[in-house]
Amino acid sequence: MGKWLAALAVLGLVATPALAGPLRAGAEAVRDRALNDPTAYDYVESISVEVGQRLAGSEAAARARDWAVAKLTSLGFSNVRVEPFPITAWLRGPEEAQITSPHPQKLAIIGLGGSVPTPPEGVEGEVALFHTYADLLAAPPGSLTGKIAVVTQPMPRGTDGVGYGALNAVRRQGPSEAARRGAIAYLHRSLATGISREPHTGALNYEEGAPKIPAAALSTIDAELIDHLAARGQPLRIRLKLASTTQPATAWTVEGEIPGKAHPDQIVQVGGHLDSWDPGAGSIDDGAGMAIAVAAAKLAGTQNPPARTIRVALFGAEEMDFARAAFAAAHAKDNIVVIGESDIGADRAWQVMLPAGSANTPAMLDYAATIAPLGVVVSPMPSRGSGDDTADLVRAGVPAFAVRQDASRYFDWHHSSEDTLDKVDRDQLNQAVATWAAFVYVAANSDIDFRALAAPVATFTATPSPQPSVAPPTPPAAKPGP
Amino acid sequence: MGKWLAALAVLGLVATPALAGPLRAGAEAVRDRALNDPTAYDYVESISVEVGQRLAGSEAAARARDWAVAKLTSLGFSNVRVEPFPITAWLRGPEEAQITSPHPQKLAIIGLGGSVPTPPEGVEGEVALFHTYADLLAAPPGSLTGKIAVVTQPMPRGTDGVGYGALNAVRRQGPSEAARRGAIAYLHRSLATGISREPHTGALNYEEGAPKIPAAALSTIDAELIDHLAARGQPLRIRLKLASTTQPATAWTVEGEIPGKAHPDQIVQVGGHLDSWDPGAGSIDDGAGMAIAVAAAKLAGTQNPPARTIRVALFGAEEMDFARAAFAAAHAKDNIVVIGESDIGADRAWQVMLPAGSANTPAMLDYAATIAPLGVVVSPMPSRGSGDDTADLVRAGVPAFAVRQDASRYFDWHHSSEDTLDKVDRDQLNQAVATWAAFVYVAANSDIDFRALAAPVATFTATPSPQPSVAPPTPPAAKPGP
Repeated sequence: MGKWLAALAVLGLVATPALAGPLRAGAEAVRDRALNDPTAYDYVESISVEVGQRLAGSEAAARARDWAVAKLTSLGFSNVRVEPFPITAWLRGPEEAQITSPHPQKLAIIGLGGSVPTPPEGVEGEVALFHTYADLLAAPPGSLTGKIAVVTQPMPRGTDGVGYGALNAVRRQGPSEAARRGAIAYLHRSLATGISREPHTGALNYEEGAPKIPAAALSTIDAELIDHLAARGQPLRIRLKLASTTQPATAWTVEGEIPGKAHPDQIVQVGGHLDSWDPGAGSIDDGAGMAIAVAAAKLAGTQNPPARTIRVALFGAEEMDFARAAFAAAHAKDNIVVIGESDIGADRAWQVMLPAGSANTPAMLDYAATIAPLGVVVSPMPSRGSGDDTADLVRAGVPAFAVRQDASRYFDWHHSSEDTLDKVDRDQLNQAVATWAAFVYVAANSDIDFRALAAPVATFTATPSPQPSVAPPTPPAAKPGP
Repeated sequence: MGKWLAALAVLGLVATPALAGPLRAGAEAVRDRALNDPTAYDYVESISVEVGQRLAGSEAAARARDWAVAKLTSLGFSNVRVEPFPITAWLRGPEEAQITSPHPQKLAIIGLGGSVPTPPEGVEGEVALFHTYADLLAAPPGSLTGKIAVVTQPMPRGTDGVGYGALNAVRRQGPSEAARRGAIAYLHRSLATGISREPHTGALNYEEGAPKIPAAALSTIDAELIDHLAARGQPLRIRLKLASTTQPATAWTVEGEIPGKAHPDQIVQVGGHLDSWDPGAGSIDDGAGMAIAVAAAKLAGTQNPPARTIRVALFGAEEMDFARAAFAAAHAKDNIVVIGESDIGADRAWQVMLPAGSANTPAMLDYAATIAPLGVVVSPMPSRGSGDDTADLVRAGVPAFAVRQDASRYFDWHHSSEDTLDKVDRDQLNQAVATWAAFVYVAANSDIDFRALAAPVATFTATPSPQPSVAPPTPPAAKPGP
């Protein structure tokens, strides 16, 4: 049994210490309710079973919208509403690939979101193999003419999902980098931590001035097969067929609120994204993320009438990067106290990142003490963001709050056909809900002003200071002492 | 099979890309040799079996010293030597604890390194239970008079060992914080990620002006039992007996070199620590760490005669913090190009932290490309340290290099009786050796000048700049986009 599971078993019975004030007592009560609350699991079970995949622009997206409106309404949220925005829908068609030489072999691949199709008969070419993405970038112009570029760099596994950040460019920019060097198609080892036959999709970003070539992800098993075959030194050839269509479409972000009693105009904004990639059921990305945010909002908002408004947003087109600008435009004038997006799966929280300058306030110290028994610590570094859909507002100055959940299993299934309900562990899910819910409660029932805390100190000296006003955060050491 | 294991299987067969220069070709050859080399496993097997525990100041420490001299000599190192330094040895005696009320129950505990003994008859008192360390710090003066303070905050598990850094003060400073508030003894939940009956020791630091009270770690199972019992609201009492002695003693750091051919005075300094805690065999802390550094030095130094000297140091008293000042004093005038300590177990590497300003040099780009197929990425943040024993030299300006290995299992066994050979996985160990060895090779066979790269740019303006000359590193986001 994990250490926080023990806390889970015990906490309901533990009296609040005499030294804690009412804010902490409320946060602890919310936390303890969260640990035994069915809302989050029921949410992810329902959307996984009743909607399934819900790629923005697909027929399923409208069903997801209606499901979300009904769900938020049935959970008691007010002002449930739909915000439409225009997108370019990309819809997958039939896809296949095989090695044609030295001997025929089927490859498990999946087209990247936004990829152009191949001609109907497909493309075939000799493989130019790169064991690292840096080697692709080092290849000279013209060196890939007529070839299919293949990058097989593996991704490290980690609690913090480090490998996904480090290798994101392999998928996002790799197709254009290969095209600039003459490649006719691009394949890369799935950005995935496990070894499986299921490939993992995700969006690409074609760059200005580079030809648009078809691009797909290989399953990790097939990427390793290509590594082995290439080591034999014989010419290796691949044939690839990808079909897809694009069309103008509409996406929808669904919102609901628990109105604040004292300061209804002050908004604690949380959420997750409603859309998903198409091969799986979107249970961990981002069914569980939405479930955590929605359950946290409900638990925090029903402990007592909140002083500030708690709002949830279920963003309608995260995976292809369409929702954030629309949301920022719709809410540019809102008084958002703090914003957070829950989008890193269903597993336990291990660290939170607080808005800059807030960690030593009484409210955040109460919060830190509330989550410590869950085995969650506060990062020494402030949050600089929290999810893709909030990024434009954060850039505009809205303080962000982030919960880091254990991502060591997440990238085994993310963006693949195996993103399904069975990956959700109820106890871990509820520990994450408790971590979120206690934050929402504290933020919505205190007068903490994250914007003021984050603002640089105003000075009236005539000469510029030789030192930055805020010391840069200290990065973690490789090992924190004996 | 993990992704880097696949690389392991393949790499020996993969031709070096035409675009790679001789430095990278050499680093890749060292890497590939490391993946199939028995040196590291044989090293940790030998010290685990032939020496076992080797607490500084114990009789075993002298045996460890002799073993290390023989081992470095047999591996072909030159200038093998012993550097003695004085320490205060702390040696454990019999220890026991039990709950005496509400009903008798034995507790699995282990005294903290440096703890004063109890009186021979022990101490007994009512438990003052704190679910979080912050709550202990919030307790008013005098509130613990006559009581035994118990902190049961759990530690999160993570690839980067985040919990150990976050909770280190629970063990280090907790005894003095409890004593200042009147406590007669201090117990804390072991700084451990697993649930087991084995308690985990480690050093405490008594603070100036606080009474020195006896202090021990509880097994995680027993800490959870106390949580459950305390929830019943009945008075909970514990009896604790700790015996220990202290005496002046000598410790030894053992060193060996592979002399540089072109620049023998320029030193690439790596190592691990020879001492261990007493309950286990010191296989992962730090038998494996030493093994990685020694094997890396040997592999890098035998690929070709290195241009710079490669030196290994096996530090003789890390756990009680005695070795670093002695090593810094002995080597203050050495021309150390870069320093690194390997002290985070036997599992796979996932990230390296390079000295500030060096990541985009040709040598380090070669290094990054060499380790990418192992599933190891370069941190966007520079290293600011690398192990406890190098800290004084790093503070004095020596550039540091750090390999981050997977610590998600490490703190299940660290500092406990279960730190034993069976925890060492040969493939993961050799992947870490390969990551280290390639770095040592590149550092020892290039003219990279880490000190110059790290130095702030000199300016000749009369007025101070309003901006820092180097931008602070960007901390990782909670999730790096969709």
